Amino acid sequence: MKDDRALLQEALQEAKLGLREGGLPIIVARGHNLRVQSGDPTAHAETVCIRNAGRRRDWHELTMVSTLSPCIMCTGTALLYRIPSVIVGENRNFLGAEDLFRSRGVELVVLDDPECIEIMAEFVRQHPDLWNEDIGL
Amino acid sequence: MKDDRALLQEALQEAKLGLREGGLPIIVARGHNLRVQSGDPTAHAETVCIRNAGRRRDWHELTMVSTLSPCIMCTGTALLYRIPSVIVGENRNFLGAEDLFRSRGVELVVLDDPECIEIMAEFVRQHPDLWNEDIGL
Repeated sequence: MKDDRALLQEALQEAKLGLREGGLPIIVARGHNLRVQSGDPTAHAETVCIRNAGRRRDWHELTMVSTLSPCIMCTGTALLYRIPSVIVGENRNFLGAEDLFRSRGVELVVLDDPECIEIMAEFVRQHPDLWNEDIGL
Repeated sequence: MKDDRALLQEALQEAKLGLREGGLPIIVARGHNLRVQSGDPTAHAETVCIRNAGRRRDWHELTMVSTLSPCIMCTGTALLYRIPSVIVGENRNFLGAEDLFRSRGVELVVLDDPECIEIMAEFVRQHPDLWNEDIGL
Protein backbone atom coordinates (compact mmCIF):
# COMPACT_ATOMS: atom_id res chain seq x y z
CA MET A 1 0.00 0.00 0.00
CA LYS A 2 2.88 2.32 0.81
CA ASP A 3 4.43 1.67 -2.62
CA ASP A 4 1.09 2.25 -4.35
CA ARG A 5 0.85 5.69 -2.74
CA ALA A 6 4.42 6.59 -3.69
CA LEU A 7 3.67 5.69 -7.31
CA LEU A 8 0.52 7.76 -7.17
CA GLN A 9 2.52 10.78 -6.01
CA GLU A 10 4.63 10.45 -9.16
CA ALA A 11 1.42 10.40 -11.20
CA LEU A 12 0.11 13.49 -9.40
CA GLN A 13 3.29 15.42 -10.18
CA GLU A 14 2.78 14.63 -13.85
CA ALA A 15 -0.90 15.67 -13.63
CA LYS A 16 0.08 19.06 -12.25
CA LEU A 17 2.50 19.52 -15.15
CA GLY A 18 -0.41 18.91 -17.52
CA LEU A 19 -2.60 21.42 -15.67
CA ARG A 20 0.04 24.14 -15.96
CA GLU A 21 0.03 23.54 -19.73
CA GLY A 22 -3.71 24.18 -19.85
CA GLY A 23 -4.52 20.51 -20.42
CA LEU A 24 -6.40 17.90 -18.42
CA PRO A 25 -5.09 16.77 -15.02
CA ILE A 26 -5.19 13.02 -15.65
CA ILE A 27 -1.95 11.12 -15.94
CA VAL A 28 -0.19 7.77 -15.65
CA ALA A 29 3.41 7.11 -14.72
CA ARG A 30 5.22 9.43 -17.12
CA GLY A 31 2.75 10.89 -19.53
CA HIS A 32 -0.17 13.26 -19.11
CA ASN A 33 -3.31 14.03 -21.07
CA LEU A 34 -2.38 15.96 -24.25
CA ARG A 35 -5.71 15.98 -26.07
CA VAL A 36 -6.15 19.74 -25.87
CA GLN A 37 -2.49 20.57 -26.42
CA SER A 38 -2.01 18.26 -29.43
CA GLY A 39 -5.50 18.03 -30.93
CA ASP A 40 -5.16 14.23 -30.80
CA PRO A 41 -8.40 12.62 -29.57
CA THR A 42 -6.51 9.50 -28.46
CA ALA A 43 -4.10 11.45 -26.22
CA HIS A 44 -5.52 10.45 -22.84
CA ALA A 45 -2.81 10.25 -20.19
CA GLU A 46 -2.61 6.46 -20.03
CA THR A 47 -2.42 6.04 -23.82
CA VAL A 48 0.21 8.81 -24.04
CA CYS A 49 2.15 7.02 -21.32
CA ILE A 50 2.06 3.71 -23.21
CA ARG A 51 3.04 5.57 -26.37
CA ASN A 52 5.94 7.14 -24.52
CA ALA A 53 6.98 3.71 -23.28
CA GLY A 54 7.74 2.79 -26.89
CA ARG A 55 8.07 -0.64 -28.49
CA ARG A 56 8.94 -3.20 -25.82
CA ARG A 57 8.34 -6.81 -24.80
CA ASP A 58 8.17 -6.42 -21.00
CA TRP A 59 4.63 -5.08 -20.67
CA HIS A 60 3.72 -8.09 -18.55
CA GLU A 61 6.12 -6.80 -15.87
CA LEU A 62 4.74 -3.24 -15.72
CA THR A 63 2.23 -1.44 -13.51
CA MET A 64 0.07 1.34 -14.87
CA VAL A 65 -0.61 4.18 -12.45
CA SER A 66 -3.29 6.79 -13.16
CA THR A 67 -4.76 9.57 -11.05
CA LEU A 68 -8.20 8.77 -12.55
CA SER A 69 -10.04 5.56 -13.42
CA PRO A 70 -8.99 4.70 -17.02
CA CYS A 71 -11.59 5.01 -19.78
CA ILE A 72 -12.38 2.10 -22.11
CA MET A 73 -9.77 3.21 -24.70
CA CYS A 74 -6.97 3.30 -22.15
CA THR A 75 -8.20 0.07 -20.58
CA GLY A 76 -8.17 -1.61 -23.98
CA THR A 77 -4.66 -0.33 -24.65
CA ALA A 78 -3.37 -1.76 -21.35
CA LEU A 79 -5.19 -5.05 -22.04
CA LEU A 80 -3.71 -5.32 -25.56
CA TYR A 81 -0.24 -5.32 -24.03
CA ARG A 82 -1.25 -7.48 -21.06
CA ILE A 83 -0.21 -5.00 -18.36
CA PRO A 84 -1.06 -7.07 -15.26
CA SER A 85 -1.44 -4.41 -12.59
CA VAL A 86 -3.18 -1.03 -12.43
CA ILE A 87 -3.21 1.56 -9.62
CA VAL A 88 -5.98 4.16 -9.77
CA GLY A 89 -6.03 7.38 -7.74
CA GLU A 90 -9.79 7.79 -7.72
CA ASN A 91 -12.97 6.81 -9.56
CA ARG A 92 -15.45 9.33 -8.09
CA ASN A 93 -15.20 11.91 -10.85
CA PHE A 94 -15.22 9.22 -13.53
CA LEU A 95 -15.70 5.47 -13.37
CA GLY A 96 -13.86 3.90 -16.30
CA ALA A 97 -13.90 0.33 -17.58
CA GLU A 98 -12.81 -1.23 -14.27
CA ASP A 99 -15.14 -4.21 -14.81
CA LEU A 100 -13.34 -4.97 -18.08
CA PHE A 101 -9.95 -4.93 -16.33
CA ARG A 102 -11.24 -7.27 -13.64
CA SER A 103 -12.91 -9.62 -16.13
CA ARG A 104 -9.49 -10.06 -17.77
CA GLY A 105 -7.73 -10.82 -14.49
CA VAL A 106 -5.90 -7.50 -14.07
CA GLU A 107 -5.03 -6.59 -10.48
CA LEU A 108 -6.72 -3.24 -9.92
CA VAL A 109 -6.27 -1.05 -6.83
CA VAL A 110 -8.35 2.12 -6.30
CA LEU A 111 -6.81 4.41 -3.67
CA ASP A 112 -9.63 6.96 -3.37
CA ASP A 113 -7.01 9.69 -2.92
CA PRO A 114 -8.33 13.11 -1.79
CA GLU A 115 -5.83 15.15 -3.82
CA CYS A 116 -6.62 13.20 -7.01
CA ILE A 117 -10.34 13.72 -6.38
CA GLU A 118 -9.91 17.46 -5.82
CA ILE A 119 -7.61 18.18 -8.80
CA MET A 120 -10.04 16.43 -11.15
CA ALA A 121 -13.22 17.87 -9.61
CA GLU A 122 -11.81 21.37 -9.92
CA PHE A 123 -10.94 20.81 -13.58
CA VAL A 124 -14.43 19.49 -14.33
CA ARG A 125 -15.95 22.52 -12.59
CA GLN A 126 -13.82 24.95 -14.58
CA HIS A 127 -13.94 23.21 -17.97
CA PRO A 128 -17.07 21.06 -18.29
CA ASP A 129 -16.92 21.34 -22.10
CA LEU A 130 -13.37 19.99 -22.39
CA TRP A 131 -14.15 17.28 -19.89
CA ASN A 132 -17.24 16.06 -21.74
CA GLU A 133 -15.30 15.97 -24.98
CA ASP A 134 -12.57 13.98 -23.25
CA ILE A 135 -14.94 11.18 -22.30
CA GLY A 136 -16.81 11.11 -25.58
CA LEU A 137 -19.95 12.99 -24.49
CA MET B 1 -23.64 -4.51 -48.78
CA LYS B 2 -22.48 -2.74 -51.93
CA ASP B 3 -21.53 0.37 -49.93
CA ASP B 4 -19.74 -1.73 -47.32
CA ARG B 5 -17.56 -3.25 -50.04
CA ALA B 6 -16.80 0.13 -51.59
CA LEU B 7 -15.65 1.41 -48.19
CA LEU B 8 -13.53 -1.68 -47.74
CA GLN B 9 -11.80 -0.99 -51.06
CA GLU B 10 -10.80 2.42 -49.68
CA ALA B 11 -9.38 0.67 -46.62
CA LEU B 12 -7.47 -1.80 -48.77
CA GLN B 13 -5.87 1.02 -50.76
CA GLU B 14 -4.63 2.50 -47.48
CA ALA B 15 -3.35 -0.91 -46.34
CA LYS B 16 -1.28 -1.27 -49.49
CA LEU B 17 0.22 2.16 -48.86
CA GLY B 18 1.29 0.94 -45.42
CA LEU B 19 2.83 -2.22 -46.89
CA ARG B 20 4.91 -0.22 -49.34
CA GLU B 21 6.29 1.73 -46.37
CA GLY B 22 7.41 -1.53 -44.74
CA GLY B 23 4.67 -1.38 -42.09
CA LEU B 24 1.71 -3.58 -41.28
CA PRO B 25 -1.10 -3.96 -43.82
CA ILE B 26 -3.99 -3.20 -41.48
CA ILE B 27 -5.92 0.00 -41.94
CA VAL B 28 -9.15 1.86 -41.37
CA ALA B 29 -10.68 4.60 -43.50
CA ARG B 30 -7.73 7.00 -43.78
CA GLY B 31 -4.97 5.85 -41.53
CA HIS B 32 -2.74 2.77 -41.55
CA ASN B 33 -0.67 0.94 -38.98
CA LEU B 34 2.45 3.01 -38.15
CA ARG B 35 3.80 1.06 -35.19
CA VAL B 36 6.99 0.00 -36.97
CA GLN B 37 7.49 3.28 -38.82
CA SER B 38 6.94 5.53 -35.77
CA GLY B 39 7.95 3.31 -32.84
CA ASP B 40 4.59 4.12 -31.21
CA PRO B 41 3.03 0.98 -29.70
CA THR B 42 -0.45 2.52 -29.89
CA ALA B 43 -0.23 3.18 -33.65
CA HIS B 44 -2.57 0.46 -34.87
CA ALA B 45 -4.42 1.50 -38.01
CA GLU B 46 -7.77 2.17 -36.35
CA THR B 47 -6.26 4.26 -33.53
CA VAL B 48 -4.14 6.20 -36.05
CA CYS B 49 -7.29 6.80 -38.07
CA ILE B 50 -9.18 8.15 -35.06
CA ARG B 51 -6.12 10.28 -34.19
CA ASN B 52 -6.09 11.62 -37.75
CA ALA B 53 -9.79 12.41 -37.47
CA GLY B 54 -8.88 14.99 -34.80
CA ARG B 55 -11.06 16.57 -32.13
CA ARG B 56 -14.70 16.38 -33.21
CA ARG B 57 -18.22 15.94 -31.86
CA ASP B 58 -19.76 13.87 -34.68
CA TRP B 59 -18.30 10.46 -33.80
CA HIS B 60 -21.83 9.10 -33.41
CA GLU B 61 -22.38 9.63 -37.16
CA LEU B 62 -19.22 7.84 -38.32
CA THR B 63 -18.46 4.32 -39.53
CA MET B 64 -15.10 2.72 -38.84
CA VAL B 65 -13.78 0.49 -41.63
CA SER B 66 -10.85 -1.86 -41.09
CA THR B 67 -9.31 -4.58 -43.22
CA LEU B 68 -8.79 -6.67 -40.05
CA SER B 69 -10.86 -7.32 -36.92
CA PRO B 70 -9.95 -4.51 -34.45
CA CYS B 71 -7.95 -5.42 -31.33
CA ILE B 72 -9.18 -4.49 -27.86
CA MET B 73 -7.29 -1.16 -27.85
CA CYS B 74 -8.84 -0.02 -31.11
CA THR B 75 -12.23 -1.36 -30.03
CA GLY B 76 -11.98 0.59 -26.79
CA THR B 77 -11.02 3.73 -28.70
CA ALA B 78 -14.05 3.44 -30.98
CA LEU B 79 -16.29 2.73 -27.97
CA LEU B 80 -14.96 5.77 -26.06
CA TYR B 81 -16.18 7.99 -28.87
CA ARG B 82 -19.38 5.99 -29.43
CA ILE B 83 -18.75 5.17 -33.09
CA PRO B 84 -21.95 3.23 -33.87
CA SER B 85 -20.96 1.18 -36.89
CA VAL B 86 -17.90 -0.92 -37.79
CA ILE B 87 -17.10 -2.73 -41.07
CA VAL B 88 -14.42 -5.42 -40.86
CA GLY B 89 -12.67 -6.95 -43.87
CA GLU B 90 -11.82 -10.25 -42.20
CA ASN B 91 -11.33 -11.93 -38.84
CA ARG B 92 -9.58 -15.15 -39.89
CA ASN B 93 -6.02 -13.96 -39.31
CA PHE B 94 -6.98 -12.25 -36.06
CA LEU B 95 -10.21 -12.17 -34.09
CA GLY B 96 -10.33 -8.92 -32.14
CA ALA B 97 -12.75 -7.76 -29.46
CA GLU B 98 -15.88 -8.23 -31.59
CA ASP B 99 -17.85 -9.49 -28.58
CA LEU B 100 -17.12 -6.23 -26.76
CA PHE B 101 -18.40 -4.20 -29.72
CA ARG B 102 -21.58 -6.27 -29.85
CA SER B 103 -22.13 -6.10 -26.08
CA ARG B 104 -22.15 -2.29 -26.41
CA GLY B 105 -24.66 -2.28 -29.25
CA VAL B 106 -22.27 -1.43 -32.09
CA GLU B 107 -23.40 -2.60 -35.53
CA LEU B 108 -20.58 -4.85 -36.74
CA VAL B 109 -20.31 -6.32 -40.24
CA VAL B 110 -17.58 -8.84 -41.15
CA LEU B 111 -17.15 -9.17 -44.92
CA ASP B 112 -14.73 -12.13 -44.98
CA ASP B 113 -12.98 -10.53 -47.94
CA PRO B 114 -10.43 -12.74 -49.79
CA GLU B 115 -8.03 -9.90 -50.60
CA CYS B 116 -7.97 -8.71 -46.96
CA ILE B 117 -7.34 -12.28 -45.81
CA GLU B 118 -4.48 -12.78 -48.27
CA ILE B 119 -2.69 -9.45 -47.66
CA MET B 120 -2.69 -10.09 -43.90
CA ALA B 121 -1.81 -13.80 -44.12
CA GLU B 122 1.16 -12.97 -46.34
CA PHE B 123 2.41 -10.33 -43.89
CA VAL B 124 2.10 -12.75 -40.94
CA ARG B 125 4.03 -15.37 -42.93
CA GLN B 126 6.83 -12.94 -43.77
CA HIS B 127 7.03 -11.09 -40.43
CA PRO B 128 5.77 -13.28 -37.57
CA ASP B 129 7.89 -11.32 -35.07
CA LEU B 130 6.42 -7.93 -35.98
CA TRP B 131 2.95 -9.43 -36.04
CA ASN B 132 3.23 -10.98 -32.57
CA GLU B 133 4.53 -7.69 -31.18
CA ASP B 134 1.60 -5.91 -32.79
CA ILE B 135 -0.96 -8.00 -30.91
CA GLY B 136 0.87 -7.96 -27.60
CA LEU B 137 2.34 -11.47 -27.74
